[in-house]
Amino acid sequence: MSVPSVSSPLCPAVDTLDAIRALVLALPGADRAAQAKAEAREPTLTKPAGSLGRLEEISAWLATWQGQHPGTVAAPHCVVFAGNHGVAARGVSAYPPEVTVQMVANFQANGAAINQLCRVNDIILSVVALDLDHPTDDFSQGPAMDEAAFVAAFGAGLRAAAKAAEAGGDVLCLGEMGIGNTTSAAALCHALFGGTATGWTGPGTGVVGEALSKKAEVVAQSVALHKPVAVDSLDLLRRLGGRELVAIAGAVVGARLNRMVVVLDGFICTASAAPLEALVPGALDHCIVAHKSQEPGHALLYAQLDKVPLFDLGLRLGEASGAATAVPILRAAAACHSGMATFAEAGVAGKE
Amino acid sequence: MSVPSVSSPLCPAVDTLDAIRALVLALPGADRAAQAKAEAREPTLTKPAGSLGRLEEISAWLATWQGQHPGTVAAPHCVVFAGNHGVAARGVSAYPPEVTVQMVANFQANGAAINQLCRVNDIILSVVALDLDHPTDDFSQGPAMDEAAFVAAFGAGLRAAAKAAEAGGDVLCLGEMGIGNTTSAAALCHALFGGTATGWTGPGTGVVGEALSKKAEVVAQSVALHKPVAVDSLDLLRRLGGRELVAIAGAVVGARLNRMVVVLDGFICTASAAPLEALVPGALDHCIVAHKSQEPGHALLYAQLDKVPLFDLGLRLGEASGAATAVPILRAAAACHSGMATFAEAGVAGKE
Repeated sequence: MSVPSVSSPLCPAVDTLDAIRALVLALPGADRAAQAKAEAREPTLTKPAGSLGRLEEISAWLATWQGQHPGTVAAPHCVVFAGNHGVAARGVSAYPPEVTVQMVANFQANGAAINQLCRVNDIILSVVALDLDHPTDDFSQGPAMDEAAFVAAFGAGLRAAAKAAEAGGDVLCLGEMGIGNTTSAAALCHALFGGTATGWTGPGTGVVGEALSKKAEVVAQSVALHKPVAVDSLDLLRRLGGRELVAIAGAVVGARLNRMVVVLDGFICTASAAPLEALVPGALDHCIVAHKSQEPGHALLYAQLDKVPLFDLGLRLGEASGAATAVPILRAAAACHSGMATFAEAGVAGKE
Repeated sequence: MSVPSVSSPLCPAVDTLDAIRALVLALPGADRAAQAKAEAREPTLTKPAGSLGRLEEISAWLATWQGQHPGTVAAPHCVVFAGNHGVAARGVSAYPPEVTVQMVANFQANGAAINQLCRVNDIILSVVALDLDHPTDDFSQGPAMDEAAFVAAFGAGLRAAAKAAEAGGDVLCLGEMGIGNTTSAAALCHALFGGTATGWTGPGTGVVGEALSKKAEVVAQSVALHKPVAVDSLDLLRRLGGRELVAIAGAVVGARLNRMVVVLDGFICTASAAPLEALVPGALDHCIVAHKSQEPGHALLYAQLDKVPLFDLGLRLGEASGAATAVPILRAAAACHSGMATFAEAGVAGKE
């Protein structure tokens, strides 16, 4: 496969927030022909109709959004984006901000949970550290990013997705690391979907009691500051996001352009993608939510996006851990759909 | 590894129902030392405490019941037992009884769902067809099996587990195939746990309307016939079970004797194991329920056993499909527990 330049269709150059907006408004649609092929094959396979439940839906979804039948889970990739947050100075995390860079080193040394999960599930892992020496500005005081920082982070996401596609990737798992980023995700969700600051604010790495109330106050203040003046959902992402959240949004768009399906992780990852759906309904149709996070805002969020997670194992780690854990479920769906014999091939009698 | 004879401790010879009863009453217990090692290591790993949720419990459970720390998911095995049921003549299935033998041929030709699931999840699959030419007797008229048939089927399960252990197996997935066997499972559950026949009776392969009401009547009649005269839960399994249900119970016992953990599949598989727990509370502590089946009796059943399934993907196929799909979750748990760096090793700061 040839490696496209950054201005090729796989990885469009975006220099402004307006260019990103235009890109999202023109996302490619579903491949209904591939979907129809999947839906035609499924009832011929040697099992009672519907008995593979959600695995049957997944195999049709893979075909629909990869634009091929059968859909595949041959080369899943995982990208973890890391960023630092000015708002961390407000005491919103149980861990100090230097943990972000320490955990990136841990990823690079194969010591984190995501490394083990990618290894056992045959997923190719990349870690993209986004200007960790320069935290975003404290969004309780002003916008987290200017347009240039936003565009740079979004472009990093687009490039990461294109790189995975160039390597033959068919499934893209996304995740994040960033001390302070549940505060960013909570503020973004509160601004996008309403509700209450306390409803969207959870313990993150383990904030409880008075510190949790303080965190919710920071969320409420920040939304009050930015929501009245924000132009749209992408502008809210610029104002309340962090670099890793913006990059995830970029990677979701990049995956769509490159016909990869996306496995979203937990609260922060799903929140990062939400501004796209708020801008263009259907923008996340190529995305699945891997799991229900223990972070309380997640259940509110995926309901807003009309998504149902694949499982609930009480995870609340981030770093794409839930997304990577979900890959074998997608692989199972693809394998059953492609590999099973039909009733005719196997000489198995049908329903009486 | 040497291959033990059938009378070795790995695979005790059982000639009577009394011998089986004695075996179940003397099952080996937990390895609390291995469990303590797992519980001591977990909080040292580079993640917020508890953030891997159920994966943390699973890694401790693997150690506890494999009797080793760390627990492993290095050689998962899967055994699918198949049997034919006299009660199928009562019109309780949407498919004709010859589908059992046809599906066994499909398993042997790698054409079924379970073949694809074992392949992609690196699970070694065995299929044990139990005297398919001789269906059990119609339990709506009398006991499904005499003692000899029961002992033979239970022994087949013990041997299958021992064979997996001899091959180095550390995890044993169990499943079944047998036209008519949701009726058997429903009757067994109704007899063991009370409730109503309609509550335990579901569509199975796709029985609806009047046929479903008839199926529930067969369940009610059969329980009324056998429950008053049954000696205990194992005797109920003989009277209302099928060979594949009895073999699953045998394999659950064989796994315990050989320090393998067990992944139970859906309704029929879980029902097969239930008589063991009814006889000896704790007999299924080395077992996990893979998934919530769409078959409505399953949720009632796992609640009785105090089990919580790992996921709900709307599966209702049987043939160990849910159990095989769950193996990567166990593998993820073992990999994180064993492979992650500690805070000290990685130089990551702890909670403030």
